[in-house]
Amino acid sequence: MTVLILTCEQDVTADMVVAKLDGRGVPVVRLDPADLPGAVALSGEYVHGVFRGHLSAGGRMVSMSGLRSIWVRRPGVPASRVAEPSDWLTEESSQALYGMLRSTDARWMNHPDAAVRARHKPWQLQVAHRSRLPVPATLITTFPQAARDFAERFPDLVVKPVSGAHPQEPPRAVPTSRVAPDADFGAVAYGPTLLQRRVSKQADIRLTAVGDRILAARKAVAPDADPDDVDVRFAASPTPWRPVEVPPRVAAGVRAYLTEAGLSYGAFDFAEDAHGIWWFLECNQSGQFGFVEIETGQPIADAVAAWLAAPNPAAAPSNGKALITENQR
Amino acid sequence: MTVLILTCEQDVTADMVVAKLDGRGVPVVRLDPADLPGAVALSGEYVHGVFRGHLSAGGRMVSMSGLRSIWVRRPGVPASRVAEPSDWLTEESSQALYGMLRSTDARWMNHPDAAVRARHKPWQLQVAHRSRLPVPATLITTFPQAARDFAERFPDLVVKPVSGAHPQEPPRAVPTSRVAPDADFGAVAYGPTLLQRRVSKQADIRLTAVGDRILAARKAVAPDADPDDVDVRFAASPTPWRPVEVPPRVAAGVRAYLTEAGLSYGAFDFAEDAHGIWWFLECNQSGQFGFVEIETGQPIADAVAAWLAAPNPAAAPSNGKALITENQR
Repeated sequence: MTVLILTCEQDVTADMVVAKLDGRGVPVVRLDPADLPGAVALSGEYVHGVFRGHLSAGGRMVSMSGLRSIWVRRPGVPASRVAEPSDWLTEESSQALYGMLRSTDARWMNHPDAAVRARHKPWQLQVAHRSRLPVPATLITTFPQAARDFAERFPDLVVKPVSGAHPQEPPRAVPTSRVAPDADFGAVAYGPTLLQRRVSKQADIRLTAVGDRILAARKAVAPDADPDDVDVRFAASPTPWRPVEVPPRVAAGVRAYLTEAGLSYGAFDFAEDAHGIWWFLECNQSGQFGFVEIETGQPIADAVAAWLAAPNPAAAPSNGKALITENQR
Repeated sequence: MTVLILTCEQDVTADMVVAKLDGRGVPVVRLDPADLPGAVALSGEYVHGVFRGHLSAGGRMVSMSGLRSIWVRRPGVPASRVAEPSDWLTEESSQALYGMLRSTDARWMNHPDAAVRARHKPWQLQVAHRSRLPVPATLITTFPQAARDFAERFPDLVVKPVSGAHPQEPPRAVPTSRVAPDADFGAVAYGPTLLQRRVSKQADIRLTAVGDRILAARKAVAPDADPDDVDVRFAASPTPWRPVEVPPRVAAGVRAYLTEAGLSYGAFDFAEDAHGIWWFLECNQSGQFGFVEIETGQPIADAVAAWLAAPNPAAAPSNGKALITENQR
């Protein structure tokens, strides 16, 4: 049974995982949907009630029924590397590829539906609440008066994007920033704005969940840090990421979150306050882990490889299912 | 409890359903996400573990917790009607609106995740098979040799798009067409191609499923019809759509399909062969029903209104759920 990795050519993180899979002797096919049609080809037949499909990439052929797992890493846009790209060909190629992959019994990291849903910040906050992870008070609004009222109740605020990265080329992360309570909130009418009570933090936590495996790293806030440097991704910091134990309540919350979200991988960001409480900030279903692994030595790539390599219990029974067929009629 | 309808301004089908809801005395808010931000505004607060949100449209305010159902009809692209549209503002507005709506307990027709998944033709064929609906032999391929082999086994073929309508403005339906078995299949290498055994049909069937309600209409093929006119949408036909009884096996298959697909609405197309067997062609989760209702008099708009108007059993308990809160800590 083969592991399928959908990603672009330049992907060091995927390289790390492929090396681990090779080490385990697990067959891997890695392809970029951008190369379909072309270097990537596919075929799927629905005859006599049975789906038989295969994929070929770089001259290597793999049967759809032989896929144990699919890792959606950083796939390119289908059909974007043909001579004359078009929305139509992208749509046709995308529906063909993902439609067939959805017809398989392979396990997904992460399933496309779960991935889309998991990006919605308002939904994340709701799921985190339900999973008993503490969430700082948050407002998302286009009403200036609602923003003013919120700033009165929670004067120490940050503002951050509702969605994720800015969709320029290459996509750009938008930093979380502090906002003064007497700011002019009139502009929120021009675009939904996310305001959140600032957690006065003593450390940033990056928790990486891979299936049941949970690994967390902690980066202490330097004693002389500027309190305006809210966003760990943008503030240069002398303190390193260090492995940290995950409190059992947090681990239970993270597992509940992943279950409700239907995710097999999630990169959680928390802010640790002065009482040691980890406040949920977000869960990025496609978050990077290379930087944590390099600084902490935590075996995240190996955990991903282990998850992808695990046998697929669903594969056998479903292929044997009795289906109504042309010939049986 | 209010019914929320997401659609554009010019939508006669939505008008029909709104009239039925008005007749039932059910409050309705109808808005186009294209008008957010602007004529549509929203606010959602996650404080003390409780989500409180509201939407306003045309000066009318509705609480998110007061939504009984959401009908995703023909919504415009969020933020597309602002003075300076941008991908970024569309993404922010989309995540804010749909993220909050996903946080509610409202019933969806159809849920966005189910809607995306339901569009994949290869997946549709698989689900139809599993639901014991007969499916004509189908091939989706970029391998010319696979196409040739298929054409040898099934010489009477049609070709149709893998995805749906061509994404031009306005989107254009691509007709299903016959293809000769000795055609040059070399071009399939340039784009995934769907070939299907042609069902020699005596009628087209349009089956509309609204929750548990199933209504079918039949359009007989005229005796002098050109066998090359495969696609009922494009062939002028003197025969009208007429209501038809749904065979119990088909009804059971359709219900199984909707359950697996997580859909509350689906427009199914079947081809009825000379033995009276209904062959599954596709299920369009957003298929039109106005033309069938007008020709057959079948009460589809009323069935949609009844589904949307039904009380939401999930609403009450979930609002009362105990959530971990800032103050409770």
